[in-house]
Amino acid sequence: MIIVMKTHAEPKDIEAVVGRVEELGYKVHLSRGEARTIIGVIGADEHLIQNSTFEVMDGVERTMRVMQPYKLASRDFSEANTVIDVNGVKIGGSKIIVMAGPCSVESRAMILETAHAVKAAGATVLRGGAFKPRSSPYSFQGLGEEGLKFLAEAREQTGLPVITEVMSPEDVTLVGEYTDIFQVGARNTQNYSLLKALGKQKKPVFLKRGISGTIQELLMSAEYILAGGNMNVMVCERGIRTYETATRNTFDINAIPVLKELSHLPVVADPAHGTGMYQLVGAISKAAVAAGADALMLEVHPDPSHAWSDGAQSLTPQRFAKLMDELRLVAQAVGREI
Amino acid sequence: MIIVMKTHAEPKDIEAVVGRVEELGYKVHLSRGEARTIIGVIGADEHLIQNSTFEVMDGVERTMRVMQPYKLASRDFSEANTVIDVNGVKIGGSKIIVMAGPCSVESRAMILETAHAVKAAGATVLRGGAFKPRSSPYSFQGLGEEGLKFLAEAREQTGLPVITEVMSPEDVTLVGEYTDIFQVGARNTQNYSLLKALGKQKKPVFLKRGISGTIQELLMSAEYILAGGNMNVMVCERGIRTYETATRNTFDINAIPVLKELSHLPVVADPAHGTGMYQLVGAISKAAVAAGADALMLEVHPDPSHAWSDGAQSLTPQRFAKLMDELRLVAQAVGREI
Amino acid sequence: MIIVMKTHAEPKDIEAVVGRVEELGYKVHLSRGEARTIIGVIGADEHLIQNSTFEVMDGVERTMRVMQPYKLASRDFSEANTVIDVNGVKIGGSKIIVMAGPCSVESRAMILETAHAVKAAGATVLRGGAFKPRSSPYSFQGLGEEGLKFLAEAREQTGLPVITEVMSPEDVTLVGEYTDIFQVGARNTQNYSLLKALGKQKKPVFLKRGISGTIQELLMSAEYILAGGNMNVMVCERGIRTYETATRNTFDINAIPVLKELSHLPVVADPAHGTGMYQLVGAISKAAVAAGADALMLEVHPDPSHAWSDGAQSLTPQRFAKLMDELRLVAQAVGREI
Amino acid sequence: MIIVMKTHAEPKDIEAVVGRVEELGYKVHLSRGEARTIIGVIGADEHLIQNSTFEVMDGVERTMRVMQPYKLASRDFSEANTVIDVNGVKIGGSKIIVMAGPCSVESRAMILETAHAVKAAGATVLRGGAFKPRSSPYSFQGLGEEGLKFLAEAREQTGLPVITEVMSPEDVTLVGEYTDIFQVGARNTQNYSLLKALGKQKKPVFLKRGISGTIQELLMSAEYILAGGNMNVMVCERGIRTYETATRNTFDINAIPVLKELSHLPVVADPAHGTGMYQLVGAISKAAVAAGADALMLEVHPDPSHAWSDGAQSLTPQRFAKLMDELRLVAQAVGREI
Repeated sequence: MIIVMKTHAEPKDIEAVVGRVEELGYKVHLSRGEARTIIGVIGADEHLIQNSTFEVMDGVERTMRVMQPYKLASRDFSEANTVIDVNGVKIGGSKIIVMAGPCSVESRAMILETAHAVKAAGATVLRGGAFKPRSSPYSFQGLGEEGLKFLAEAREQTGLPVITEVMSPEDVTLVGEYTDIFQVGARNTQNYSLLKALGKQKKPVFLKRGISGTIQELLMSAEYILAGGNMNVMVCERGIRTYETATRNTFDINAIPVLKELSHLPVVADPAHGTGMYQLVGAISKAAVAAGADALMLEVHPDPSHAWSDGAQSLTPQRFAKLMDELRLVAQAVGREI
Repeated sequence: MIIVMKTHAEPKDIEAVVGRVEELGYKVHLSRGEARTIIGVIGADEHLIQNSTFEVMDGVERTMRVMQPYKLASRDFSEANTVIDVNGVKIGGSKIIVMAGPCSVESRAMILETAHAVKAAGATVLRGGAFKPRSSPYSFQGLGEEGLKFLAEAREQTGLPVITEVMSPEDVTLVGEYTDIFQVGARNTQNYSLLKALGKQKKPVFLKRGISGTIQELLMSAEYILAGGNMNVMVCERGIRTYETATRNTFDINAIPVLKELSHLPVVADPAHGTGMYQLVGAISKAAVAAGADALMLEVHPDPSHAWSDGAQSLTPQRFAKLMDELRLVAQAVGREI
Repeated sequence: MIIVMKTHAEPKDIEAVVGRVEELGYKVHLSRGEARTIIGVIGADEHLIQNSTFEVMDGVERTMRVMQPYKLASRDFSEANTVIDVNGVKIGGSKIIVMAGPCSVESRAMILETAHAVKAAGATVLRGGAFKPRSSPYSFQGLGEEGLKFLAEAREQTGLPVITEVMSPEDVTLVGEYTDIFQVGARNTQNYSLLKALGKQKKPVFLKRGISGTIQELLMSAEYILAGGNMNVMVCERGIRTYETATRNTFDINAIPVLKELSHLPVVADPAHGTGMYQLVGAISKAAVAAGADALMLEVHPDPSHAWSDGAQSLTPQRFAKLMDELRLVAQAVGREI
Repeated sequence: MIIVMKTHAEPKDIEAVVGRVEELGYKVHLSRGEARTIIGVIGADEHLIQNSTFEVMDGVERTMRVMQPYKLASRDFSEANTVIDVNGVKIGGSKIIVMAGPCSVESRAMILETAHAVKAAGATVLRGGAFKPRSSPYSFQGLGEEGLKFLAEAREQTGLPVITEVMSPEDVTLVGEYTDIFQVGARNTQNYSLLKALGKQKKPVFLKRGISGTIQELLMSAEYILAGGNMNVMVCERGIRTYETATRNTFDINAIPVLKELSHLPVVADPAHGTGMYQLVGAISKAAVAAGADALMLEVHPDPSHAWSDGAQSLTPQRFAKLMDELRLVAQAVGREI
């Protein structure tokens, strides 16, 4: 950490700051410039020191952190990319993985039909929500355990591993009986009770970026799971909230190469939530692959105008199959395959 | 809901949309303008209909909601302001309530000392965190139940009702044994499992706006608690995330009069999180009172440079007492008292 | 326009609104729902009516526009893509155009060297700034007319048409003597005096989206130029301002397909400003091409660590040549060429 | 400036950075921590050095500025508040100044009527737009010089100094013949050609924050005018663009105390643009005064539903007079007067 003193900071203010740094067990590196003094805090672990400790002291203008606040999620921790094996499907390797399926599991027939359709088009993981976080208490909240059973049946029939959302630490055991990958949604990215519960079990976790979460916060939330002992975490860009209203969210394409540089974890793109409009999903899926995403999550529904949730951003099976063909070409152009 | 058709929508597209509206049990009101056709959806309850149902149909340009998606939280539901009685302290009435105390309960001595100090200066509710949502898994996570016990002791000594945060549905029973008001933090505003659990019990709930939550989302989250049967909800403006980096958050002062207009629930202001800097807390507290807030939540710590969390935005007891004197004058100027 | 009345709007309020609509020369379409009345405003030209006229009237809850506020920039105006011919280089056609060169023209030798290098790698337009909008009055403000002369010389030597920024209506004549395309920067997107001046002359205009401009505002600013009589306008996504600090701006990849859907104008992507970091420029350039951009603008400098501006986001000629090779493959994968 | 090297930066990378710092005429202060090396750049004037110079060098992780980039606008430059005298009206002193009038000058009768009304209620400066920046080329663009003449006549009749907007460097002379204060609108905050022209003349300048400008950018734009030789600059908070759609803009109340701390320039609040709704203008005006604003700018129109622009955020003369009475009480509560 670096502590910048005010222009007119008095010697006693500087001494007080130095004293507090040493009291906390760190060493001090003093740099007296022409305009002001800068105090470097030296020690093995910046994570234990708080900016706010110093910002309230007399003569301090501001503090700046030097180190990233995450460790296990960092590229410094592992130069090699993490590859997560889910029943033989490898996420984070050279092959780009496509996870597809409906927003919500609406019935047995519907999830089975969709599962077969996405498999035929080339998807390798089946998605579907059984516990749904809805902004209105009056909206459909998901089929619950019944939905999980339908998902499990779809896995048996197709061989596709399944991913489904978990919303509460209480549900981790139940959902874990059925799912292959736990999904943490954008509203729960900083639900630390849930993250801790997922860190204590072994199944892979798919962690979405918060609705307006920073990239650093996403990696800090991953760190909660990693620090709990579960190293199978993938992170997902799903669009951020901005002032722009032409689309539901602003897909942060920059986040893909930034996450690949800062971290060794697999990076997934979610163009459905990143745009909110099925007409844009194709263009953004291609862009995400071109930018280096390791996987895509796509919403596919047999009849979007009758979907119980997120119909506007869902592809029909026909559109999905056509998109998969286009994506294969883009993947090839950047030296990968789907 | 209003459905705007594209300029060149064909008659069969319009018919299909009308058919779908009627299939869902609503009536249609057709308006054919010179440029395009607009379809009004008429029915008692717009809450059950989804925009996305129509946005995927051919010829539809976009849909616009007419009604607010919340009911019980709405000013239409109750013209009279809700006043919440917490052990005799009335929140939402003509008197402005000040809730003060440390970010975290750090020790028995510290919370007792702070409780007496804030009471002496005029606070009427004691705040203090025992379960702390921290962005790093390596940061202090709160004293847990021990902290709750210290808070309860401070209440016994001072007579001040207490407010503390709950982070998980599993903890509602435990925290409820000690606290008078449940606090839901900004990272859990859309933790629906938690909101549902709080809707099923009777103690008042203090609900913070999400880190970049809209005013509508805040009221929708309140609706989850209200719909569960608990009508004692107060909502809190705590600053939103914007591009501005000069302050930790941007305190949305507009939200105070907007919330008072849209809803009957008491509105609390949190200038500590709304600014992140103790130097600004005084100005923003006065502004919030001038703008019509029903209550303030303030962070007070006996020694901010030794605080275990949020020191930079905490007032010393001396600064807090001085601010209370200033606030009394502003409250009076807008026809209220503290 | 649609005017939504409040739940309890009185008949006289509704009459007053209807009267005002008719006074303005529009017709009314009344829809009385169970909960509230909705007033449709019908007329050939919604552009002449203001929302604010009604929002101050008693009983009005809010107003919603139905039509896009731009006309000439709209896809409704021209289904065919606009293709702009600049000395034989066609922008907006099937071939993707690459405009490359330094942020600032720093010297005659430097712009000539860069011009030859980018041409050799496949660029078809040369960029370079002579008048520079700098956030500090103490920073280098550009070489002015001398820089324009160097650009013209580079054009003569290489045959590449040139693009350079104009900052003020007073400079349109001078800059127009040298440049082939006028660039309007992000700080001047809503400089209407400048837009009007550019609408009155014939050379093509490259219009950047504002620093936090909406897509609609970008098209409205284009409309100023089009309405002035100059139909040769291309629009540029260059990243928007968000809360994320990991990158200089957030490149709004969604804007590319949205602009192509809403408008017939050519769409350019500027990954240098969209990221602020040369390490990310390659990934975002590929993404922009995959998403459907008609052209790219890239910053190339022979020695970025000695650049007088924007060095951090500039490519060396070597990196640029390598990227061009990669881009050719991506362009081909989406059915285009570079 | 501080340059943070990567964890594994090699000695030759560090040497290269040190060499470049010295080549630019600065001294180096090296701090070798356990994890990484930090290079301090020491010299009298950080303004001449660019971050980007170093960010492209091998082994550099990032750079951080230590000094504020503005000088003349800084509180370090003048501890005393700047007080601007406009025909005897002192802006920036203990008395809070209210500038009021219509968005646009619509006719002679209208501006004269409004001028007398706002003077009677206690306003001390008259506002009114003659050159209007409108997002649509089809909207009313202002009366131009005719409007300026009406404003001048209103000044003669009432004795109130006038403020009006200037949009282009070409218009500075013309507008200066009539106005007492030049207003620079939010779309022109970074129109450097205009700022330079205003720096060369002597009349006071009222500079609005950009639509999503940072506080630092606002002070940098002020610096352009100050560096030109004109020290009579006041800065205005007018709401920023955020994701929240309940209001037109988000009034950044934090900016008021932050600007007062960072700068000696008078700070004005514009609650009309800060909210976009006349119903909120009263609450936010009181909040701005409570937070320390030196002046308010308010929109007053004799008949807002017939206003040619910004009717929704305009007060009637009656509402304005009532608000002035309320503001006097709040001003008194914070030790000032109106």
